[in-house]
Amino acid sequence: MTDDNIIYVGNKPVMNYVLAVVTQFNNGADEVLIKARGRAISRAVDVAEISRKRFLSEVDVKDIAISTESLSTETGETNVSAIEITVGK
Amino acid sequence: MTDDNIIYVGNKPVMNYVLAVVTQFNNGADEVLIKARGRAISRAVDVAEISRKRFLSEVDVKDIAISTESLSTETGETNVSAIEITVGK
Repeated sequence: MTDDNIIYVGNKPVMNYVLAVVTQFNNGADEVLIKARGRAISRAVDVAEISRKRFLSEVDVKDIAISTESLSTETGETNVSAIEITVGK
Repeated sequence: MTDDNIIYVGNKPVMNYVLAVVTQFNNGADEVLIKARGRAISRAVDVAEISRKRFLSEVDVKDIAISTESLSTETGETNVSAIEITVGK
């Protein structure tokens, strides 16, 4: 999997990321990794669900992993949850 | 798994749900299912991560599933993403 096949989900509208996922598969990708942290985790799940239910009927969820990442901020170390959803044919 | 072993994550503070998970394991449960919909999905991931990293070192994530649920609202049908995280010993 190349870096192009990783979609980082942030605060933009969910359809922006769905379009990015669909584009990856239309360009020949077999798998796409959808990543998000913190409150964007809910949106990442939306991206995976909308992509496969509405646009990519041959694509399914292959793997889901959750983890905790440590971030350095002005006020010190803080922990944030993260998710990685692998969708593929 | 009995109904008691299902924790529904909503809009309360995350530690409320962590306490519920820890209590289930302390009462002898081998597995707990953490469920959430919509924007509470991010909080459900926090609950799983905080429970296992900070309180329950012998507990790990066993399975994660995502799905789409259809809700009836005043304005018609609407879809919402959902997550189910199984944590167990």
